[in-house]
Amino acid sequence: MPHIDLPPLPGIAGLLAGYPQTAGPLNSLAETLLRGPSPLTPGQRETIAAYVSRRNECTFCAETHGAVARQLGRGDDDSGPLMTALLAIADKVRADGRSVTADDVAAARAAGADDRTVHDTVLIAAAFSMFNRYVDGLGTLTPVDPGDYERHAHALAEHGYLRPPV
Amino acid sequence: MPHIDLPPLPGIAGLLAGYPQTAGPLNSLAETLLRGPSPLTPGQRETIAAYVSRRNECTFCAETHGAVARQLGRGDDDSGPLMTALLAIADKVRADGRSVTADDVAAARAAGADDRTVHDTVLIAAAFSMFNRYVDGLGTLTPVDPGDYERHAHALAEHGYLRPPV
Repeated sequence: MPHIDLPPLPGIAGLLAGYPQTAGPLNSLAETLLRGPSPLTPGQRETIAAYVSRRNECTFCAETHGAVARQLGRGDDDSGPLMTALLAIADKVRADGRSVTADDVAAARAAGADDRTVHDTVLIAAAFSMFNRYVDGLGTLTPVDPGDYERHAHALAEHGYLRPPV
Repeated sequence: MPHIDLPPLPGIAGLLAGYPQTAGPLNSLAETLLRGPSPLTPGQRETIAAYVSRRNECTFCAETHGAVARQLGRGDDDSGPLMTALLAIADKVRADGRSVTADDVAAARAAGADDRTVHDTVLIAAAFSMFNRYVDGLGTLTPVDPGDYERHAHALAEHGYLRPPV
């Protein structure tokens, strides 16, 4: 049961519906980070979001963004050296920003990352360190039916983050 | 030295100047959370932000928001039962959102917190878990002169988060 009174919607959906004032900048941040211009594809960015959420054991976020990444189609090279290096950076940011080293960034550059790629990876990992804590810190509802995640993910894959959840 | 090429501004200021596309929603989130309508005063909210940043050992964020909280004036009861209960929740969110218990929330309610107070506390703690990681994950510059923080804090205390840093 959530720690505060919320509309009966799962995960962050109940928080965004119940607190529209903060929902505006949160949705705008998600849209900019995950769908705005970036050297990374939306599928790659959703993969980073899902990975960080999985490592933080935020089930709602991990299942949702994992499903969005699958629906958007990950690139052929998403298990290749670039994504491997970026996910290693994301995992360090998740644990403690200070743990990212010049060597981690050099490994990402050697695999093809430019400054913007490193920036976007760090900020996506940091942002999901926020979203995960927001969702779990208020004890929001976590669906158990995988179909719920697929439907929610379909709306996000189709329309992005600026529309109310369906 | 920062991990990516940035304008020579300390902490998040260099990131916001160098990456204006994501700066928009990040500044808007900070302004809404720390200055928008809330049962908590701006001074109380800056105190939560500074506390989380200190516990995350993000020197730039802790020094900046600590100075903003001092300049805005903390309320007389900021070491009283309400802030004590809210900082305990913030520290749990910082560590792992799942660690917040119904008892933690009940203690805050017994000290006068309503749903909105609990919500805002959790989201401020979650948001600074992001800002701290963004600032430290990219290795941004940390000033050593306390005067630098006081000047930056003065601008934030006077004008909020929607103006470029001076």
